[in-house]
Amino acid sequence: MIQRLAVLGLGLLGGSVAKAARAAGVAREIVGIGRDTARLEPARRDGTVDHVTTDIAAGVSGADVVVLAATVDAIERQLETVARAVEPDALVTDVGSTKAGIVGAAERLAAARPFSFVGSHPMAGSERNGYAVARADLFHGATVIVTPTDQTPPALVKSVSALWEALGAGRVVQLDPHTHDRAVAAISHLPHVAAFALVDAVARFEPGAFEVAARGFKDTTRIAASDPEVWRTILLANRGAVVASLAAFREALDALERLIAGGDAAALDAAIARIKAQRESLR
Amino acid sequence: MIQRLAVLGLGLLGGSVAKAARAAGVAREIVGIGRDTARLEPARRDGTVDHVTTDIAAGVSGADVVVLAATVDAIERQLETVARAVEPDALVTDVGSTKAGIVGAAERLAAARPFSFVGSHPMAGSERNGYAVARADLFHGATVIVTPTDQTPPALVKSVSALWEALGAGRVVQLDPHTHDRAVAAISHLPHVAAFALVDAVARFEPGAFEVAARGFKDTTRIAASDPEVWRTILLANRGAVVASLAAFREALDALERLIAGGDAAALDAAIARIKAQRESLR
Repeated sequence: MIQRLAVLGLGLLGGSVAKAARAAGVAREIVGIGRDTARLEPARRDGTVDHVTTDIAAGVSGADVVVLAATVDAIERQLETVARAVEPDALVTDVGSTKAGIVGAAERLAAARPFSFVGSHPMAGSERNGYAVARADLFHGATVIVTPTDQTPPALVKSVSALWEALGAGRVVQLDPHTHDRAVAAISHLPHVAAFALVDAVARFEPGAFEVAARGFKDTTRIAASDPEVWRTILLANRGAVVASLAAFREALDALERLIAGGDAAALDAAIARIKAQRESLR
Repeated sequence: MIQRLAVLGLGLLGGSVAKAARAAGVAREIVGIGRDTARLEPARRDGTVDHVTTDIAAGVSGADVVVLAATVDAIERQLETVARAVEPDALVTDVGSTKAGIVGAAERLAAARPFSFVGSHPMAGSERNGYAVARADLFHGATVIVTPTDQTPPALVKSVSALWEALGAGRVVQLDPHTHDRAVAAISHLPHVAAFALVDAVARFEPGAFEVAARGFKDTTRIAASDPEVWRTILLANRGAVVASLAAFREALDALERLIAGGDAAALDAAIARIKAQRESLR
């Protein structure tokens, strides 16, 4: 049982952490922390959190679990205050989409004043954002990646895994922060850039085609309706891996285009069949 | 009331045409035509069609409506037999994903022996294929593009539109075959190539990432599990427009990559916001 859970940022992810914790009854007290009291109020009014505050240090002091759920650049900034105010043995984690920067910042701060941090990235979300779309079941069945380093005590990995399982995660996997950032570049950030570019390509090439778009286009570009601030932040925070994944994407596009332009039916068949099998093997 | 509806090819689309016609009671008699009797039998057994035949000429003779529902290259080949055997005033249409080639072939044949053709492209489908996934409601609410030319009698456009509305279409729009092919390149063929390339890029860049793929990746690449034969045929039949749309896609990708690599937060925000608004304006 968590005595006091502090959640910093009550958007889709932070709001869902608080709602899931409340629904599962795993925290005696939940504190919501944010920049703007008015935006925190709905979570207090509906009983998801017990208290709200705009004071990060006050909000995290006395907490035994702290979840940082703002945008990735805000998390890096907030860590400084959190590191100073939090109990050294309180579990501190985050939900940021990139991990090398956040984990690096946490380890530099912990070298000065020890505190117990391990990075998390729940692979759940939506193109919509904000507390209004937060859900107690957002993490149900989801994969959560946790990103310990060789400096992370195994007991801390166990605690953060137990936290996510209590919030409904279907599976908790471990990756080092660098591998995590390449992996999410490949399966999350690159697809966002591709979806943005697809919508933009239609606008450039044949804008009237939007009028006849069907389910295939809508599914493929659903994530192109994502929040600009969230995605600008993620793409810039992970730009090295994103640019490297874009190079691999261009190679894959070029290879397909050569087969199409050259009219090579047998090789195109084989390439699509190979890719289809890979797509179908996804769990 | 259609006296005799002949459907050539009982896969997802042809099977769904027959099922929708049967369910709506718009055809007294339905004939299923295909290469292989054994593959047509399920449609006869479940009552979707009344007769099956592998003889195209016999199947279409005496029909007042003929729907060609094989792959695009097969449709072009079959048109020759259909043009010879069909009643001159029977409505002949197709469901092919590219139109300039099919419509051109039909008009060349009609110049020799007049018959009543107008191209159709129902914007409905699935990454799955075959009669087993055909559904009476596949076209419910769907957009169907019909592609008359200046040689097409207006009465024929009216008939084909009425046919699709009877099968459940939400809306029938007209495009000339060339504009149709550019439009579907942009909103269907290009997204398929992009989805194929995304899956392939993950395999090239960080194959372990497949293990943590979440809903965003799955939605964006759902169509990468499409049938190789169907898609090889479509991409090659429309290769000119596909290659041109790929050029527009690369420009869009390059523009986004410059903003990401350059760390231009304000311009990246603005670009994503503009694309998000465009995506959200889709009906």
